[in-house]
Amino acid sequence: MLTYIFVIAITAEAMSGALAAGRRNMDLFGVALIAFLTALGGGTVRDVLLGNYPVTWTQHPLYIYLTIGAGMFTMLIARFMHRLKQIFLLVDAMGLVAFTIIGCDVALRLDYATPVVIMAGITTGIFGGILRDIMCNRTPQVLRHELYASVSLLVALLYLGLRALEVNENLNLLVSFMFGLGMRLAAIRYQWSLPVFAYDNDQWED
Amino acid sequence: MLTYIFVIAITAEAMSGALAAGRRNMDLFGVALIAFLTALGGGTVRDVLLGNYPVTWTQHPLYIYLTIGAGMFTMLIARFMHRLKQIFLLVDAMGLVAFTIIGCDVALRLDYATPVVIMAGITTGIFGGILRDIMCNRTPQVLRHELYASVSLLVALLYLGLRALEVNENLNLLVSFMFGLGMRLAAIRYQWSLPVFAYDNDQWED
Amino acid sequence: MLTYIFVIAITAEAMSGALAAGRRNMDLFGVALIAFLTALGGGTVRDVLLGNYPVTWTQHPLYIYLTIGAGMFTMLIARFMHRLKQIFLLVDAMGLVAFTIIGCDVALRLDYATPVVIMAGITTGIFGGILRDIMCNRTPQVLRHELYASVSLLVALLYLGLRALEVNENLNLLVSFMFGLGMRLAAIRYQWSLPVFAYDNDQWED
Repeated sequence: MLTYIFVIAITAEAMSGALAAGRRNMDLFGVALIAFLTALGGGTVRDVLLGNYPVTWTQHPLYIYLTIGAGMFTMLIARFMHRLKQIFLLVDAMGLVAFTIIGCDVALRLDYATPVVIMAGITTGIFGGILRDIMCNRTPQVLRHELYASVSLLVALLYLGLRALEVNENLNLLVSFMFGLGMRLAAIRYQWSLPVFAYDNDQWED
Repeated sequence: MLTYIFVIAITAEAMSGALAAGRRNMDLFGVALIAFLTALGGGTVRDVLLGNYPVTWTQHPLYIYLTIGAGMFTMLIARFMHRLKQIFLLVDAMGLVAFTIIGCDVALRLDYATPVVIMAGITTGIFGGILRDIMCNRTPQVLRHELYASVSLLVALLYLGLRALEVNENLNLLVSFMFGLGMRLAAIRYQWSLPVFAYDNDQWED
Repeated sequence: MLTYIFVIAITAEAMSGALAAGRRNMDLFGVALIAFLTALGGGTVRDVLLGNYPVTWTQHPLYIYLTIGAGMFTMLIARFMHRLKQIFLLVDAMGLVAFTIIGCDVALRLDYATPVVIMAGITTGIFGGILRDIMCNRTPQVLRHELYASVSLLVALLYLGLRALEVNENLNLLVSFMFGLGMRLAAIRYQWSLPVFAYDNDQWED
């Protein structure tokens, strides 16, 4: 099941990357590259950090075609995308949660300590979006919006907690997934957000 | 032959990095670092992605001196560089093509699948310029100019195609190189460019 | 001793990251992430470049808690931080020097050539600050301020020079450390800086 969600999720992330590239007037190639990076960049950073070679997507060329294809497709349907906003946010939320769980699994398989497993989950969940924003020369959105990265953290904690309690793996997956999805959708609906740290002291170092 | 072109190419890339650093009023050290990253960053990202350790330039300290030296030298001759624009564009084009072929070769040696080989070629070709632009806080130029990244893609496709047809290696090198160089120079001359995706919907996210 | 300084240094770097995040109005999570990246990002980039797996911090979860905790703490005391500016600059200078020496040691242990050892030292010293600035969408400060990256270079050269002369390891550490600290503090006090390369030719590319 996680694989299906993963495939849907990388498609959604690729589309979000393509839209961001469009806002910077990038060409066809830029759109393809940003789509790819947004969808698969988080997992790539995780693999490189953990030394998990070969990097996942290099073993699944299908993901390359899929994300680039989704980016191209987005160029065609962009003018209708605002009507799809609700669906898009739903799929993006599914992606965030699925990426997080997959990221934890990879680090668990490599026997990393629990805090590293959590960081691997979060990295997989949010770093694609961070790379997208760096490439598009804007401050990463995932660190300023309603609960997003925090949902990734909570999902990782719940998933590892239930695992420590030896809850059945499939049940754990289901519970963690539904919880994360619910949290993210509620955060969007009710505009939950973390306290913001607004620091503005120009005397102090640029 | 590819080695000679490679050496010329990293020199040219280092110079382009130094000019970009100069536009941001960086100090001597910043110029050296950006020159180095622009010239050798693409190959570094490729090596890290493919797990190709040790990273190439760590085994060739000469490349470090060469790129940093080229960056320093650029500071001295910057005021005359606009007269050299034509030569500069030519050398940069040679670099793009040579980097692409070298990148493909590295991935082929490691037995990666064809789409990964192509991505390795493109990464080597364009990521130095992308890192340069990220460090200088601007949207990557290679994704917005006349055909650039696309030339890298076409060269990779041609090189792998001729290889699959078992064309003689040296002939393949020559044909792919001349084709890529011709494409890039024609793209500059006739301002060929890819369709741009201009998306501007402020209601929608961001 | 280097370990104690290292711990103090990552705390200081984490705080500088948190302040930068605050200037971009990031949320709690963004502050934590930027604090972590600023403190441990330099060492991470070094480990990935050198293929030094597992990456250091993944084996010391304490560093994760420490840097994130320091970031959170900074949010609480930010309004008083301008009074601490002198202490902060001192600790940051200690960090720069300690990071550089530690980075050289890692590369030496892996038998890299001398220029690579120097690059590893500098990378460890300055890349956390570069990642911080990239994430906060500003041009890297370390390449534009009074002597900073250059101090890292000088420390690496001195440390390796004394090592080649077979000076006692502890003495070398002490001398290199005091020299680097003195240089950096003098650079701040007397506003020493490198020549800046200001290049401004709009006709030429971009």
